Amino acid sequence: MKQIGQELLQKVITSRPLNSHKGDYGRLLLIGGTYPYGGAIIMAALAAVRSGAGLVTAATDRENIAALHSRLPEAMAFDLRETDRLFEQMARADVVLIGPGLAEGDFEKALLSKLLQEAGEDQVLIVDGGAISLFSQAALSFLKAQAIFTPHQKEWERLSGLPVAEQTEAANRAAVNAFPLGTILVQKKHGTAIYQSGSSESWQLTAGGPYQATGGMGDTLAGMIAAFAGQFKEQSLLDRVAAATLLHSVIADALSREAYVVLPTDISREIPRWMKLLCEEKTDFS
Amino acid sequence: MKQIGQELLQKVITSRPLNSHKGDYGRLLLIGGTYPYGGAIIMAALAAVRSGAGLVTAATDRENIAALHSRLPEAMAFDLRETDRLFEQMARADVVLIGPGLAEGDFEKALLSKLLQEAGEDQVLIVDGGAISLFSQAALSFLKAQAIFTPHQKEWERLSGLPVAEQTEAANRAAVNAFPLGTILVQKKHGTAIYQSGSSESWQLTAGGPYQATGGMGDTLAGMIAAFAGQFKEQSLLDRVAAATLLHSVIADALSREAYVVLPTDISREIPRWMKLLCEEKTDFS
Amino acid sequence: MKQIGQELLQKVITSRPLNSHKGDYGRLLLIGGTYPYGGAIIMAALAAVRSGAGLVTAATDRENIAALHSRLPEAMAFDLRETDRLFEQMARADVVLIGPGLAEGDFEKALLSKLLQEAGEDQVLIVDGGAISLFSQAALSFLKAQAIFTPHQKEWERLSGLPVAEQTEAANRAAVNAFPLGTILVQKKHGTAIYQSGSSESWQLTAGGPYQATGGMGDTLAGMIAAFAGQFKEQSLLDRVAAATLLHSVIADALSREAYVVLPTDISREIPRWMKLLCEEKTDFS
Amino acid sequence: MKQIGQELLQKVITSRPLNSHKGDYGRLLLIGGTYPYGGAIIMAALAAVRSGAGLVTAATDRENIAALHSRLPEAMAFDLRETDRLFEQMARADVVLIGPGLAEGDFEKALLSKLLQEAGEDQVLIVDGGAISLFSQAALSFLKAQAIFTPHQKEWERLSGLPVAEQTEAANRAAVNAFPLGTILVQKKHGTAIYQSGSSESWQLTAGGPYQATGGMGDTLAGMIAAFAGQFKEQSLLDRVAAATLLHSVIADALSREAYVVLPTDISREIPRWMKLLCEEKTDFS
Repeated sequence: MKQIGQELLQKVITSRPLNSHKGDYGRLLLIGGTYPYGGAIIMAALAAVRSGAGLVTAATDRENIAALHSRLPEAMAFDLRETDRLFEQMARADVVLIGPGLAEGDFEKALLSKLLQEAGEDQVLIVDGGAISLFSQAALSFLKAQAIFTPHQKEWERLSGLPVAEQTEAANRAAVNAFPLGTILVQKKHGTAIYQSGSSESWQLTAGGPYQATGGMGDTLAGMIAAFAGQFKEQSLLDRVAAATLLHSVIADALSREAYVVLPTDISREIPRWMKLLCEEKTDFS
Repeated sequence: MKQIGQELLQKVITSRPLNSHKGDYGRLLLIGGTYPYGGAIIMAALAAVRSGAGLVTAATDRENIAALHSRLPEAMAFDLRETDRLFEQMARADVVLIGPGLAEGDFEKALLSKLLQEAGEDQVLIVDGGAISLFSQAALSFLKAQAIFTPHQKEWERLSGLPVAEQTEAANRAAVNAFPLGTILVQKKHGTAIYQSGSSESWQLTAGGPYQATGGMGDTLAGMIAAFAGQFKEQSLLDRVAAATLLHSVIADALSREAYVVLPTDISREIPRWMKLLCEEKTDFS
Repeated sequence: MKQIGQELLQKVITSRPLNSHKGDYGRLLLIGGTYPYGGAIIMAALAAVRSGAGLVTAATDRENIAALHSRLPEAMAFDLRETDRLFEQMARADVVLIGPGLAEGDFEKALLSKLLQEAGEDQVLIVDGGAISLFSQAALSFLKAQAIFTPHQKEWERLSGLPVAEQTEAANRAAVNAFPLGTILVQKKHGTAIYQSGSSESWQLTAGGPYQATGGMGDTLAGMIAAFAGQFKEQSLLDRVAAATLLHSVIADALSREAYVVLPTDISREIPRWMKLLCEEKTDFS
Repeated sequence: MKQIGQELLQKVITSRPLNSHKGDYGRLLLIGGTYPYGGAIIMAALAAVRSGAGLVTAATDRENIAALHSRLPEAMAFDLRETDRLFEQMARADVVLIGPGLAEGDFEKALLSKLLQEAGEDQVLIVDGGAISLFSQAALSFLKAQAIFTPHQKEWERLSGLPVAEQTEAANRAAVNAFPLGTILVQKKHGTAIYQSGSSESWQLTAGGPYQATGGMGDTLAGMIAAFAGQFKEQSLLDRVAAATLLHSVIADALSREAYVVLPTDISREIPRWMKLLCEEKTDFS
């Protein structure tokens, strides 16, 4: 496996052209945070906004909107049960993230199923958390969007059929190749690995640590990946996903020097500062 | 076009007389934040309060009030569907800002229409965001209030009939002159420009940058303009609007030295400190 | 008029005995924040908690509780329309503050009337904001509690019958003497003055400035006065009220050195640090 | 009584193994925050998350969830009246904390009773606040879980039958021995003491002070104890409870050097930094 190094961050995170506007930095739709997991979509949205996404809209439970707006007025938010609005927003999004805090009910299952069919070729679709649990292999035949899956080991077992103990690099790569060409897998674990369907390579994260072992870490990562997928289009999607994943852990590592545990929202707070440092190539965090 | 320079900030932002009270710094009514855009009016209100407005009241969806009060207990807030209260508050306001996060529904359209007729000559009326989309030229014949419009390029196209590609300085100035004498246009874009009906001049902003390309930036600017419109009455309204617009970007520029993106609420947090620095003429931010 | 000086702060704010508990620092009941003024009681409660009150309970609109708890989980909060609970809480409180953000409706009027009758001799009752507007002179005959009124000039006009222009020191002192012996008046204005019924003296604040001219300042002051009334019982109530009033403005003055406007919640944030400095007599803020 | 010293903190708070995940740091269920005490469970959850708990779920009033998620999106939260979900979550929890802000109603009483019967031998059950008041000695016969009680003096009186004046070390130790073997008592007061049923020893806290005399302190302590009970399993539960109790006061002491009062949420904010310092044995806070 190739290691993902600091140079990737500096390759991906580049200065913005002067004459650009929020439409150039991604229109993101984040779906999740259904009862009792409302906090998850708040964390994903915080991470996305602070990673530079142009426009972030959350589709969540109506009763979750006050908490989201209190914490993050920068995001729009609507009731995900308003399905007309949801599919209209989906059609306009550059990046759709589904799953952070998505409860595993019938409504959510039907929603995911419809989303998988509707998402277009020019859209990036990130399948995370609850949406991975609800995902069925049958859906793969419909999938036109560029898909990214972000399972932890148990979720990857369900998705791939590979028991955790058999999730070797070779087995994972083979399993990923069963997904549509180009599909990206971010397999979350100690030493998170990234695969892409059709590629003979794989990439490993060397940053991160046990101070991140707390609820919401994955929601924050998913929000960062969504934001990076909506920006930096001169780089491959794989590079952008890898850079977001690395940055998430690099910030955690830095914060862990002064904190026994690093909370997801602590990471989000630091993102703009780190992106600036990396953009200016001033930083050596090794 | 004349450039708006630092000296304008120092001219406008002056020390407060010792024996003054909140009534001297503007009674502001901010209307917007209707579902699903609740965050917008929170950002506008935050910006207004932190820019020194004496009294800020938000008219928004009832379900949005908890988020607003959680973030900003300093503002009052009521349900904009209580139209009796709304028009009573309107009558007492020095400055009315309508539009940040105003959904484009029938209720909102009727509300805007009534507001345009009711606003009096001694009131400043700022038309932003959703209210620009709902605005119709026919309304201009009713307009008695001193109006300020804050469209981005697409909104200006709708308002003026000028396609984005034809929005030259001369064309814009001609279009502004079709509005009642004294009407101010803040045309938001890279290098935001300011026009006033009846004037042969126009002004250009030289501050600001792509780190501001994120949702909510305009809502924050609208709140700052509203606050400046309620204060500093020894200067012309045009100067106050230009100063608010410049300050918004000057703060963003300063924050961008340490942040890849600057969030709207980051700007609001910094406003009192910058106004103090400018008031004391201690700052050279060039 | 005597000026209230720094030495008063150091006299009042003294070290806590080691073996003490929250019951020793006041059980406060704060009543207000009714629609559309929910933020006011949040600010009063923030100020009270951060000024060292032992237990703070807010009686407010049920829909306002989420915002209050989000901002200040340290306070308890219940629906002020649960009158059984309200009067039970009142009976147990050392200090009752009524008025910050109290709407002027029939319910509130009846509530105030009952409260004025019920409050006992050993309770401190602070009448602020909306409660001053609802107060009628007839109520004075019932009043057994030690009362503190905190009107601004217009409210004092309504309360005393003195037009603003006639609110001279002598006239104010005479008007205060019509209140039950010991009643304290904090007359808020530029150079806030404090009077006590039965005293031939009056006291004037020399701190504070126009950077405080923003909504919510009075709510914060009321919360501080309530907290001081529940503590420092070795000093007279007058001294405690004067110390809270001075501290409020002293903090504002200090913050104004780096901020054009000082928000009420900015003051509250600083209270514990300033009380510590004053308690240790380390500070010379002149 | 033995004094609990700094060396205990360094013994308990050790580095996390690299290859670990959130399941290794405790699945916590916190039950409480029922009207009008919603803030209490927010404070307990904040303390638990910031003390390193792997997964924190709060069972509280549905109307309290928005405030909790606004302040702490890292925690999950559900309506404690959904008893199916509650008992399902209870069955999966490593640590159950019941009581912070638990109102003393019939529903809560029945809930506690069922919980006491259902909790298994391999679970830690912390009984705090309202749950202590609702606890009846009869329940002891059912109790299989490893129990921790955290009463203040009045609550201990109710629980043990010992009047406050008779709560001597010997009497307390005798009373604790009436509880199932291994039951831990954290008796909160100036100089908090810790006892364990079956032990001939007792331990006393020497940290802490009157700056902590404010509502919510105990809720924060309960959250810290819950988090420590879910981690650091190489040490005895007694040591973990004592370490959490000491850390709570050690942080308060440190903050009190610059603050007249220390709020519960101030303590929580500092926990990760202190745990890091202690883990690295760099700190001498004596």
